[in-house]
Amino acid sequence: MTTHPFTGAPDTDTQLDTAFPGDGLNRIDTALRSVEQLMFDIVDSDVDVLRDASRHILQAGGKRIRPRMVLLSHAATGSGDLSAAVPAAAAIELVHTASVVHDDINDHGVVRRGRPSVNSIWGRTFALLTGDFLFTKVYELMAPYGELNALFAEATIALVEGETLQASAVKDKNLSREVYHKIIERKTAALFKMGAELGGRLSAAPEKQLEALRLYGNNIGLAFQIVDDILDLTGDSEQLGKTAGIDIEQGKGFAAVQENGGNGGDPMDAFKARLMQGNRIQQGRQQAQMLVETGIAALDALPSTPYRDAMIELAQVVVNRSS
Amino acid sequence: MTTHPFTGAPDTDTQLDTAFPGDGLNRIDTALRSVEQLMFDIVDSDVDVLRDASRHILQAGGKRIRPRMVLLSHAATGSGDLSAAVPAAAAIELVHTASVVHDDINDHGVVRRGRPSVNSIWGRTFALLTGDFLFTKVYELMAPYGELNALFAEATIALVEGETLQASAVKDKNLSREVYHKIIERKTAALFKMGAELGGRLSAAPEKQLEALRLYGNNIGLAFQIVDDILDLTGDSEQLGKTAGIDIEQGKGFAAVQENGGNGGDPMDAFKARLMQGNRIQQGRQQAQMLVETGIAALDALPSTPYRDAMIELAQVVVNRSS
Repeated sequence: MTTHPFTGAPDTDTQLDTAFPGDGLNRIDTALRSVEQLMFDIVDSDVDVLRDASRHILQAGGKRIRPRMVLLSHAATGSGDLSAAVPAAAAIELVHTASVVHDDINDHGVVRRGRPSVNSIWGRTFALLTGDFLFTKVYELMAPYGELNALFAEATIALVEGETLQASAVKDKNLSREVYHKIIERKTAALFKMGAELGGRLSAAPEKQLEALRLYGNNIGLAFQIVDDILDLTGDSEQLGKTAGIDIEQGKGFAAVQENGGNGGDPMDAFKARLMQGNRIQQGRQQAQMLVETGIAALDALPSTPYRDAMIELAQVVVNRSS
Repeated sequence: MTTHPFTGAPDTDTQLDTAFPGDGLNRIDTALRSVEQLMFDIVDSDVDVLRDASRHILQAGGKRIRPRMVLLSHAATGSGDLSAAVPAAAAIELVHTASVVHDDINDHGVVRRGRPSVNSIWGRTFALLTGDFLFTKVYELMAPYGELNALFAEATIALVEGETLQASAVKDKNLSREVYHKIIERKTAALFKMGAELGGRLSAAPEKQLEALRLYGNNIGLAFQIVDDILDLTGDSEQLGKTAGIDIEQGKGFAAVQENGGNGGDPMDAFKARLMQGNRIQQGRQQAQMLVETGIAALDALPSTPYRDAMIELAQVVVNRSS
């Protein structure tokens, strides 16, 4: 990347020219701060509601797992300067943020990341437009990345397809194990997989490493979503920072798998009752653990660095988290 | 463009390799048929509702003014082979289509292009996701276009900003002449302006011609929207192919300008009453005519060809249309 990521002109932007200082993981933290700043800056607009609603959801925080994965993957494949990955890392987080804003419209979610959701403050119309705005800002951020846009587009298509499969499953009350896997592979794992690969591609990593990164990203993404669905069942709203129980109530998520046939009563009660009888939560945790272990094993294809260690740690955090 | 527009691989796709046969305007019609086919093909998905809803709105037709403008501009700046502009022309129509699908959610529109709107058939959730899907398909189509993506991103951002300004004006019941101009410049003219410029950029047209194309596109876009708003006031649903009167009812559009202050009654009735008293519709028609004339005059910067003549004719059709 020798051109400015927004204008295509030679890169003279001071923020992005800044070499990230320090050895080891300080570089990642510094780059993540640049990602935060870039996201905050790029959603600026003279249309107040778009700027305010975008910054509201961004300032609520979130785990930033996706941009962290891009940056770690980029560093772990040998990049000495992370600045080329910063706009892409911001873009992947904005895709996720846009999907969250639209998801909260469809689910009537009122709490997100511990704050009122965009739709609960600004209403559905402006929430829809804010999500669209964030999507267009992804496009702006990615414009300078040339052929990597095809990779990025593929993952965003999968995300929308996954969300749609989920909405269809809820509507049809038909969530088989196969459909559940297809849903989480597209709505969640596709973006993780692409993010991990993107970091490697920006380092011009060899195909063997890219293949390892794809497997790592995909498995961590699947595990992340399974754990998310479990937490949605077992957590409370305060701990999760979003409206808990929505996914169960709407017949989505892990515990709903093969649970929603032939029951005429309140699906929420039915799920909970069956859950207490079985050991599905433990099974889900085990499945997530296995996925993470396979993902970590794939990283053997990468040289041993503090960044690879951090990728292993990230994977473990994903599966062991309680919020 | 020597690479395949979707994969970035060397272009061996037979459809896009096809030289458009015939002299003169047959080439445009042939290219437009390729645009139709490409849009139909690109929205294919194993997620039934996304494929079906996308094809439903695409098959309803529409005027296809934006892709026509891209192709004419490309031909009028000397391109002997229009195939490089076909994916971009499809992308610009899909941006417009996505915005129409989301617009109908927010406006509760039930008829679009003479058919039931996506939201009226599939509901709001799937309509929202279909709009998102179309946006991601735009991204896929544009991925191979390199630096032109920055231009495209800028126009899509403007579109969302324009839609948001309009929703804000309706909510605040504050639609001044200045705000109206800002709204239509962004929500409509930005895409026309970009489309006209894009055609020229793909021909590597000189800056003087690009400047002319931007002025032409911008003015035709403004005129198009003014006429659209007038037709929304005066037309009936059958002729327009969409739910007529929505824009008036919601306090948007040309006739609503400076009409919605200090009236406590039904805004629909108030607009209509004032409309009959004044000559606002005639004023709007005159303004659109002036814009089109200035836009046409700018085309003097282009060589005299059947394509330039067709651009002039397109502009006249825009301002004189009755549906």
